Amino acid sequence: MQVRDCLISAPGKAILHGEHAVVHGKVALAVSLNLRTYLQLKAKDDGKVSINLPNIETFVSWELSELKQLIPCFSDKKEEVQRLDPELVKKLREFMGVNNGNLDSSTTATLAFLYIYLSLFGSGEMPSLTVSVWSELPTGAGLGSSAAYSVCLAAALLCVSGKIPAPLKDGEQTGRWCQEDLELINSWAFQGEKIIHGNPSGVDNAVGTWGGMLRFLAGKIIPLSRVPLLRILLTNTKVPRSTKVLVARVKDKINKFPSIMIPVLDSVDAISCTCEKVLTEMTCEPITGEHYNILEELIDINQHHLNVMGVGHPSLDILCKVTAARGLHSKLTGAGGGGCGITLLRPETDLVTVQGTVKDLRDCGFDCWETSIGGPGVQQHFPFSVKEEILEVLNRY
Amino acid sequence: MQVRDCLISAPGKAILHGEHAVVHGKVALAVSLNLRTYLQLKAKDDGKVSINLPNIETFVSWELSELKQLIPCFSDKKEEVQRLDPELVKKLREFMGVNNGNLDSSTTATLAFLYIYLSLFGSGEMPSLTVSVWSELPTGAGLGSSAAYSVCLAAALLCVSGKIPAPLKDGEQTGRWCQEDLELINSWAFQGEKIIHGNPSGVDNAVGTWGGMLRFLAGKIIPLSRVPLLRILLTNTKVPRSTKVLVARVKDKINKFPSIMIPVLDSVDAISCTCEKVLTEMTCEPITGEHYNILEELIDINQHHLNVMGVGHPSLDILCKVTAARGLHSKLTGAGGGGCGITLLRPETDLVTVQGTVKDLRDCGFDCWETSIGGPGVQQHFPFSVKEEILEVLNRY
Repeated sequence: MQVRDCLISAPGKAILHGEHAVVHGKVALAVSLNLRTYLQLKAKDDGKVSINLPNIETFVSWELSELKQLIPCFSDKKEEVQRLDPELVKKLREFMGVNNGNLDSSTTATLAFLYIYLSLFGSGEMPSLTVSVWSELPTGAGLGSSAAYSVCLAAALLCVSGKIPAPLKDGEQTGRWCQEDLELINSWAFQGEKIIHGNPSGVDNAVGTWGGMLRFLAGKIIPLSRVPLLRILLTNTKVPRSTKVLVARVKDKINKFPSIMIPVLDSVDAISCTCEKVLTEMTCEPITGEHYNILEELIDINQHHLNVMGVGHPSLDILCKVTAARGLHSKLTGAGGGGCGITLLRPETDLVTVQGTVKDLRDCGFDCWETSIGGPGVQQHFPFSVKEEILEVLNRY
Repeated sequence: MQVRDCLISAPGKAILHGEHAVVHGKVALAVSLNLRTYLQLKAKDDGKVSINLPNIETFVSWELSELKQLIPCFSDKKEEVQRLDPELVKKLREFMGVNNGNLDSSTTATLAFLYIYLSLFGSGEMPSLTVSVWSELPTGAGLGSSAAYSVCLAAALLCVSGKIPAPLKDGEQTGRWCQEDLELINSWAFQGEKIIHGNPSGVDNAVGTWGGMLRFLAGKIIPLSRVPLLRILLTNTKVPRSTKVLVARVKDKINKFPSIMIPVLDSVDAISCTCEKVLTEMTCEPITGEHYNILEELIDINQHHLNVMGVGHPSLDILCKVTAARGLHSKLTGAGGGGCGITLLRPETDLVTVQGTVKDLRDCGFDCWETSIGGPGVQQHFPFSVKEEILEVLNRY
């Protein structure tokens, strides 16, 4: 097997509108977040398979001979991707010497790698290779960092296996796969997500794969063909929260005040639909200030609704207040109760305003990045087109 | 005609829930505000009729002979109360030498007095008397100060005319009228409100008359039999606003985003109904902390909804923040965009907290009163039962 080196990236994810409401059958809009995870795959001839995940201080190496011992139990699987084989996962856990309760990110990320690697190569020649991953995304912040990792893994290993081509053409900086290949990448990434998260919705890996924006409704995920790229600030308040507790809090409030809360969910649903309509318009007609005015109004309304649902937090109030003082509009994204928020930047928002706002937010103790939403999904990069600091990290291993 | 002196008071009004939504066919709850307007009527034998309204620096006196010249045009009216006679108003304006455009509070208050006085006494003996009014309510703040004035006027002049009795019994501090008498007072007060406001809803005079709480829906006003007395802080941010502009702003937002805004109105409607239910429960069963928890939650949710409608204001955000810092819950009351807000006090809220909060709010430049909502409507007082400083003002004239 001829293994070709490759450099692949996938974006993170933010919920633009509809978090929490989606749990109650309403539309949510998930968008790609241009803080990306980069994976470098290098061919080796030392008979080893290695992964290096410096973000989570995970560096593991196996002899091919070790991994081959696991093959018999996979050999009848023939690279099946439809659903996760719990027996396979159990075997891998045993191999790694972890018990069921151990769900730290280092363990689950390693398991996801081994699952995809052995599923794709277990029935044939097993290539010696090193996979190194570096992410711009904070982990555990609800920004889809694990999905971006799974998507990169799936794309890279599928390329090596020859099941999909390497899409990068000579002289181009990035290459994207065709729809069919993306579906295969997404399917394998979803298996990785299942290993990492147990019962993921599939939204995060879909956003990592397709990029842009996805409409998510009652378990169905529909990628939207065209959306504009929107500049945003992403702020991590770093206030820890439990998604499970917050979801339960919203449910309790709906049960306590159904006649008050159900209309609020309906209003959130309409916000998502209105936002989708405006973003679609922005790709077909000249973008005007009024388009941005509406996007800002929708952000403000939804942030109030999320407060009504009980998933606000004083840190998020501060985010809204600090950005409002500079004429910018913010909402929480994801579970709330702390966590992350997004702030829309208008095309005319100047550097001084952006830098000042970022400074203000950092002065509050928050992490803050200027980035964009709606950008491309998984792609292959010509190495020298990637930021030097990222290459520098990846090339350490 | 034997004129007996009397001292009468009527409460102000606050909207507990449903402001703005009521314009769009939803329920609103109006409550009496125990900042009261006091009217002292004194018999005179100098052949003069005088009104003294020190709050608005209005002091007017007429000779009975002057007023008698106006009688012919009223003599066929026979104290009709069903609807305002525009010709009568026009005559009074001519008499006072004001043109149609002049709508300052001094002019309209004087017109309202003359209208009720001449309607009640024009067809018979005209008594010489002096009416002095002092109000604890700020004027023009949406707290029903003009209605409280009209209600006091109607009650006092109806008493003098003998159409209703003086309800104060020997040895009692206050007296209330029977339902039928209250209806007559309310009808005449409504005429006064029409002169002052042009096209009033009738809610303010109904609250001033009946006190307690009223349910207001699609123009129908239903007094609620029993409600608990709730301690509140009333805060006047003193930020001037135009009700007309704010009502138009909400309408524009509904037209712009009907699918988003109509559910918000439905949610406000449900808040009013839930609040009414809780308040009714509080009069039939032991009051618990949970009753207050729900009232607080409803206040918070509605304040967010009012912000969604676009009638919030930074001054109101400050009110909410300052009171939240002491564990208290606030919302705007009335038109919003500045104006007034109410803060619910719990039975266990101690003096230190109340005084500290009042001080904090005054330090923000706001006016702030500790008062209550849900108290009695129009009543007659035994003079010495009224606070000395009020008597002192009234007795100056």
